[in-house]
Amino acid sequence: MRESEFLQTLHFNSLRLENGSVVNMSVPIVLAIDDLQKQGIGDSKRVALVDSDDNTIAIFNDIEIYKHPKEERIARTWGTTAPGLPYVEETIAGSGNWLIGGDLEVLEPIKYHDGLDHFRLSPAELREEFARRNADAVFAFQLRNPVHNGHALLMTDTRRRLLEMGYKNPILLLHPLGGYTKADDVPLSWRMKQHEEVLKDGVLDPETTVVSIFPSPMHYSGPTEVQWHAKARINAGANFYIVGRDPAGMSHPVEKRDLYDADHGKKVLSMAPGLERLNILPFRVAAYDKTQGKMAFFDPSRHGDFLFISGTKMRALAKNKENPPDGFMCPGGWKVLVEYYDSMTLAGNGKVPEPVPA
Amino acid sequence: MRESEFLQTLHFNSLRLENGSVVNMSVPIVLAIDDLQKQGIGDSKRVALVDSDDNTIAIFNDIEIYKHPKEERIARTWGTTAPGLPYVEETIAGSGNWLIGGDLEVLEPIKYHDGLDHFRLSPAELREEFARRNADAVFAFQLRNPVHNGHALLMTDTRRRLLEMGYKNPILLLHPLGGYTKADDVPLSWRMKQHEEVLKDGVLDPETTVVSIFPSPMHYSGPTEVQWHAKARINAGANFYIVGRDPAGMSHPVEKRDLYDADHGKKVLSMAPGLERLNILPFRVAAYDKTQGKMAFFDPSRHGDFLFISGTKMRALAKNKENPPDGFMCPGGWKVLVEYYDSMTLAGNGKVPEPVPA
Repeated sequence: MRESEFLQTLHFNSLRLENGSVVNMSVPIVLAIDDLQKQGIGDSKRVALVDSDDNTIAIFNDIEIYKHPKEERIARTWGTTAPGLPYVEETIAGSGNWLIGGDLEVLEPIKYHDGLDHFRLSPAELREEFARRNADAVFAFQLRNPVHNGHALLMTDTRRRLLEMGYKNPILLLHPLGGYTKADDVPLSWRMKQHEEVLKDGVLDPETTVVSIFPSPMHYSGPTEVQWHAKARINAGANFYIVGRDPAGMSHPVEKRDLYDADHGKKVLSMAPGLERLNILPFRVAAYDKTQGKMAFFDPSRHGDFLFISGTKMRALAKNKENPPDGFMCPGGWKVLVEYYDSMTLAGNGKVPEPVPA
Repeated sequence: MRESEFLQTLHFNSLRLENGSVVNMSVPIVLAIDDLQKQGIGDSKRVALVDSDDNTIAIFNDIEIYKHPKEERIARTWGTTAPGLPYVEETIAGSGNWLIGGDLEVLEPIKYHDGLDHFRLSPAELREEFARRNADAVFAFQLRNPVHNGHALLMTDTRRRLLEMGYKNPILLLHPLGGYTKADDVPLSWRMKQHEEVLKDGVLDPETTVVSIFPSPMHYSGPTEVQWHAKARINAGANFYIVGRDPAGMSHPVEKRDLYDADHGKKVLSMAPGLERLNILPFRVAAYDKTQGKMAFFDPSRHGDFLFISGTKMRALAKNKENPPDGFMCPGGWKVLVEYYDSMTLAGNGKVPEPVPA
C-alpha cells in the first residue's frame, strides 16, 4: 500500500478509486522496512522482492517510502493497544519504522512447496472453478479451526436455504485461513487433512464444495478484520457470506472479557462501505443436542438439552485422546486431531512449525 | 448517537443515510450513563435531559441503551490509548459504562448565560447571515488560540485569492472553538475579548468577517477531529476550509514526539468520505520576518530572517508582561492576553473557570 491507501484503510476502512467508486479495505497490507533497508534503497524507484533463496519473485515499481506509525496502526486496526495481541507481537512490534509502497509486479504465482499449493487457488482461478461447476450462487465459509458437525450443519442448512430461495446450484467455498495463526490454533497442514476427511466421510458434499486455502494471516481484529474476510471472498466470486458470533474475535489480551462485542462484527459488516451488495447470512448457533445425539440448532426453550463444546474443550479432549460425544465430529476428522496432538507431544514443543514460502 | 451511528463513526468516519448518501462523521457525539441511571430509566422509551437547575431542555425519544466500549472508542478516535489525552481524562475515563441514543427533541435553543450567547449562532443562523451579506464564497477558520498577525495574514490572503478566483464577496467565518480546551489554552471569554480587539484594530475587516462561537469540545484527535471541524463548518454554510500543519494535533502524552504526522490531517481531510465537495485551502506557514518587522509568509531561501513564535513562547511573554516583536499581534489584542495572565496570577490558580450551560 501507498500512504494514501494506508491512511484511507485506517480511517475509513475503504478506498476511493479514481473513478469515484468505493471499495472496502479494512486491514493495511503493507511492507515494513528498517532504517538500514531504507538507506540501501536510497533514491531507487524500483525494488526487487526476493524469497528465502534470494530468487526475485516480484518487483516494486515507482516506490514511495513513508513513516510506519505503529501505535496508530495498532490502535485503529484493533481498537486497543494492549500488549499480547498475537499478530501485533508476531509481525508489527519488531518491524521497521518505515513502510514501502508502490506498483507491485508479481513475476509468477507464489508457491509454498509444502504439498498444499494445489489448494491455493487465486481469486481468478476460484471464479473459473465456480463457472466450470455452473454455480448460480456461491456462499463462503471462513474458518481457522477443524470442521465439526455444527459447522457442517450450518453449511448444509445454508445450501438448503439458498435452494429454497430459488437457486439451482449453490456452491460452498470452504476457505480455511492459511496464513499466521496463534499458537493454540491447529496448524494449516493438519486442518487441511481434517477437512479432507470431512469431505471423504460425506459430512460435506464434494460435488457442491470447493476447498481452497485463503493465504491471509489471522489478525484477530474482530469487526475490522471480518470486512477483509468478506471482501476477499467477494473478489473470489462469492455472493453470500456466512458470519457468526464474534467473527475474528478473541479474548482481551489483558482484561478478563472478550475483546469485541460479539454482535459488532455482524453489525459493522452490514454497514461497511463497499460491501453494500454483499448478502450476509447470519449464523444460527449450533450445539450438541443430547436428546438427538447430534449437533443441532440451539433451541433456548429447552436449553438443558444442549451441550456447548468450546474450542478449548475440543482441544483438551483430543490432547487426552478422549472421544467427544458421538455426532460431534466425523470419526476420520477426529482421528486427524488426535494424531496432531500426538505428534506435538512427541516433538515436545508448543506448535508444529508451519511452512513458509520457499 | 444510536449504536449503528456510533459504530459507523468509529469504523468508517462516515454515516450512510437511508437514501444511500454518505455524510462525514468522525467524532462520536454520545451521552454516557452509569448503571444507576440505566436502572432508573428501566423500560422507559423517553428520557428528559435537564440543565443544572433541573429545567427540562430536551427530550430523548425512542431511546436505545448500549454498551460504552471506552477503550475501543479511545483507540479508534485518537489512534492511541496512552494516558494523558486531555479530552479522554476530562470526559470519557470517568464516564458511565452505557451510552444512550435516540431521537433528540430540543425544546429551545441552548443558552449559557455567560454574556457570549449572542456569539453562538446556529448553523441555520450562520447561513442566514451569509445570505444577508450576499456572500458568494464563505471560508472558515477554526481556532482555539488568540489571533496573531500570522493568522490574520493567512485569512486576508485567502480572501485575496478568492477574489482573484472571481468571487465578488468572500466572507470569512472566524469560528473559535467554544467547548472544552486543555488547561494551558486561553479560555473562551478571554479569547472572545481578544478577537473583538483584532476586529476593532482593523486587523480583520468587520464588513467581511462573521465571528461566531463553535460550541464543540476540543478532542485533540488530529486527522480524525479535523474532519469534524470541516464538516461542521460546511453545515454552517462554508465552502472553503483553511487547514494548516497538524490540525487538532498535540504532543504525544507519553512519548517525546508529536502525536500525529503533521501532514496526515490535510491528507486525511482530502480523502474523507462525505467531504468530496469541500474546497481545502492549505495553510502557508507564516512567521515573523525580522527584515520587514511583520508577520509574512515564510521564505525558506532566507530562513535566517524569520522568527517562529510558538504558542508556548507567546504565553510566556504575556505572562511576564513582555512585549512580542512589533507587528506580531495588534496592541489591543496583546493587552487582553496580558490582562488574562494577570487575572490568573491574582486568582492563584491554573485556569480561570469556564462557564457551563445554566
